[in-house]
Amino acid sequence: MTRTPDPVKPLIAGLYEQACVGNGSGAVTLWRHPEDRRLEATSLNYWLNQARIAEQSGFDLFFFGDVLGVYDVYGGSGDAAIEGGTELPALDPLEIIPALAAHTTDLSFGATVSTTYTQPFSHARRFSTLDHITSGRIAWNIVTSYLPNAAANFGLGAQRPHDDRYARADEFLDVTYKLWEQSWDDGAVLADRENGRFADPALVRAIDHEGEHFRVKGPHLVTPSPQRTPVLIQAGWSPRGKQFAAKHAEVVFLGSSDVSEIRSGLADIRALAEKEGRDGSQIRALAGLPVITGRTNDEVQRRIDEYQSYYQAAPQLAGYAGWSGIDYAALGDDDPLPSAPGTNVATDHRQQTTRELRERFSKVTAFADERFIGTPEKVADAIAEFAHESGIDGFLLHQFVSPGSLEQFAELIVPQLEKRGLIDPTARRTPFRSRLRDDGSARLPADHPARRPLGARS
Amino acid sequence: MTRTPDPVKPLIAGLYEQACVGNGSGAVTLWRHPEDRRLEATSLNYWLNQARIAEQSGFDLFFFGDVLGVYDVYGGSGDAAIEGGTELPALDPLEIIPALAAHTTDLSFGATVSTTYTQPFSHARRFSTLDHITSGRIAWNIVTSYLPNAAANFGLGAQRPHDDRYARADEFLDVTYKLWEQSWDDGAVLADRENGRFADPALVRAIDHEGEHFRVKGPHLVTPSPQRTPVLIQAGWSPRGKQFAAKHAEVVFLGSSDVSEIRSGLADIRALAEKEGRDGSQIRALAGLPVITGRTNDEVQRRIDEYQSYYQAAPQLAGYAGWSGIDYAALGDDDPLPSAPGTNVATDHRQQTTRELRERFSKVTAFADERFIGTPEKVADAIAEFAHESGIDGFLLHQFVSPGSLEQFAELIVPQLEKRGLIDPTARRTPFRSRLRDDGSARLPADHPARRPLGARS
Repeated sequence: MTRTPDPVKPLIAGLYEQACVGNGSGAVTLWRHPEDRRLEATSLNYWLNQARIAEQSGFDLFFFGDVLGVYDVYGGSGDAAIEGGTELPALDPLEIIPALAAHTTDLSFGATVSTTYTQPFSHARRFSTLDHITSGRIAWNIVTSYLPNAAANFGLGAQRPHDDRYARADEFLDVTYKLWEQSWDDGAVLADRENGRFADPALVRAIDHEGEHFRVKGPHLVTPSPQRTPVLIQAGWSPRGKQFAAKHAEVVFLGSSDVSEIRSGLADIRALAEKEGRDGSQIRALAGLPVITGRTNDEVQRRIDEYQSYYQAAPQLAGYAGWSGIDYAALGDDDPLPSAPGTNVATDHRQQTTRELRERFSKVTAFADERFIGTPEKVADAIAEFAHESGIDGFLLHQFVSPGSLEQFAELIVPQLEKRGLIDPTARRTPFRSRLRDDGSARLPADHPARRPLGARS
Repeated sequence: MTRTPDPVKPLIAGLYEQACVGNGSGAVTLWRHPEDRRLEATSLNYWLNQARIAEQSGFDLFFFGDVLGVYDVYGGSGDAAIEGGTELPALDPLEIIPALAAHTTDLSFGATVSTTYTQPFSHARRFSTLDHITSGRIAWNIVTSYLPNAAANFGLGAQRPHDDRYARADEFLDVTYKLWEQSWDDGAVLADRENGRFADPALVRAIDHEGEHFRVKGPHLVTPSPQRTPVLIQAGWSPRGKQFAAKHAEVVFLGSSDVSEIRSGLADIRALAEKEGRDGSQIRALAGLPVITGRTNDEVQRRIDEYQSYYQAAPQLAGYAGWSGIDYAALGDDDPLPSAPGTNVATDHRQQTTRELRERFSKVTAFADERFIGTPEKVADAIAEFAHESGIDGFLLHQFVSPGSLEQFAELIVPQLEKRGLIDPTARRTPFRSRLRDDGSARLPADHPARRPLGARS
């Protein structure tokens, strides 16, 4: 099928978060800012407050990134990351989301979970539980992990090779699909009080999975939930990552902010999806959106200057080194930057030498984007143009100061986006999948590999 | 130290729950009862309601049992358990507790997690997160699992032998202790806004654990939480289980309801604890408490008769078969009951033959206790006598109908217990450990193995 995007289709509005103090997606050390409360990230109130604002502002998705190790590539140790708080402490987002769900009704939640360090049986049970208790407001961001320290925390001497991690991820997904979609038939739960039949054993089956990485008997322990399979998000932008996304993902989180690279990357993924027998037009794309705004240009500049005064480069570079696998501390200023093949780090053409990289990371705007810095009208126009030209379906807002960035976005940008038809607070928002698909279905479509019957699987 | 129990010390009041429809600790099929709402166990409101009542009634602990497989011993298949709903669906309690914590302030939560099917690094992170967001209201019930189906869901062809599971559990605990107690010093978190130092790397260390079952580098990803190590609960009543409890447990959940067996079992555990260098007097004991009450004897009898009309034996026996590992369906009426060594099932002297077992399980009171069936005065007196004679420190209430059993206990029994000084609603209840220990400390004492410094470990 060909894709004919509606230029004024409302965007899927998401908030990018990570359950930590030093927020690597904005600027790590802005927890120092006097109005910032990220030092309270270990308390529930910090998160409840953000979830309430996101819901009230018409956001669809509260997305949690995650890591399973410290950033120990930079300078060969975790010291810079620990000192600055780079993505530390790394709380488990799955122990926060249920609390946020209990205080919201429309907001959906995305949780990053690595297939490399968990077991598919318990993972499937966990997400089925979440899908039930959130009434279908849960998405899973599938990652394969990249930090060497994470491998060492799970008994693996060295990080598994990139493609090998994807092979395990493929089988991991196959197991969870069987549990979510094939183990309990739709009519299996009888809830028959009169005859005392909770379920029909003839409609509940073991999955008897025997693969290279996993042996899982089943049946699944949880009855079918509103979405059965959580909405599947994937962020791989490498060739293998795109192939994986084409096969599995319903939402891709983009590893680029370049309009033409996004267009061609999405076209690749959608074409690959069609080859897999899927309707590529239903794959949604979300881009990271780092915004700094203010009522006037002066206010914007004052904000940036203020941010800069709390910014430190080393903890930010520690994060970047972990994503790319390159120890920038060990490189001379004139050394060319090595490429970082097989990682999830964004292709980035902004610098060629270590000096240029250091120059970029000397500024609090290292991860910001000129297009999205400015007055509400300017930023809203830029978002509209970016969405139209790149073909994205939505965004994940990156924050610099919290509270602060989300509140400013809600107060200043959201009304502008509403005016442009880019946010529709009345759009059906739950179950999450219904919000994403043209057919409004809460369930995966028949063309998705998860729906393949047990007998038809390789 | 010798233990001199105060005869009117307030009891630790707990509720026994399991995130399922068919509650095996009461009577499985009472979800059929017209007032029962367990069919809504997949919705958050069901759990929020129970947590609120428990907190308002002065309960200290909301305890979740758990299983990781279906009960497939009885009749050689899971059919009876699936049809009756025996401990199914098995939702993940760790995805429910955060929501309950967000709607309560004093109630603590116990979660059962098996050391056999999870990784210590992610487990430690999960419980540190819970301890933070609940402000120290979390306990871990350490189990090693018993269902053959659970083993088959995690790639293990056969259940690991009982003692081998305990050896893995011992090392699992050692790893988590290192992460919780030794990886971050008390002064490690600086939260120093002025100098931009989140933590002092010199006070954060890798644990570099290299053992038979696990290799875990660390450091721990989460900063020290109010209790650091969650309160440690253990239910083993086998010789190996008692040894394990003596070494690790702060609370033992009793596998017996027999007064003299409890007395001698607790004396054993406390003596073994002293040999381990621990103060045995600080180990608390909780007993299961299945109560059926009513304002008059007639009302009690009507209630039992009503329960009986919704009772079915097979799903109840399916649960019991899973606990003991014995397929009672395969035994003739006159066959003696095999013993069930090495399991967590309670020693039970109530029957000698399969016929006697079937006779017992034909009644809804199979898991009830004559002492705790009756009018409020009778039950409260029985609890007082049981506590005094057995030396227990508290109870976990088992429910038959929900809503129903908890509400009746709160309304009718709690006032009677208060009158007898057995429940003190003003007792300090958080952090949970402070409620348990004579010294009121939120932290494990120096005599606990978790506090042994890294260098002093074998």
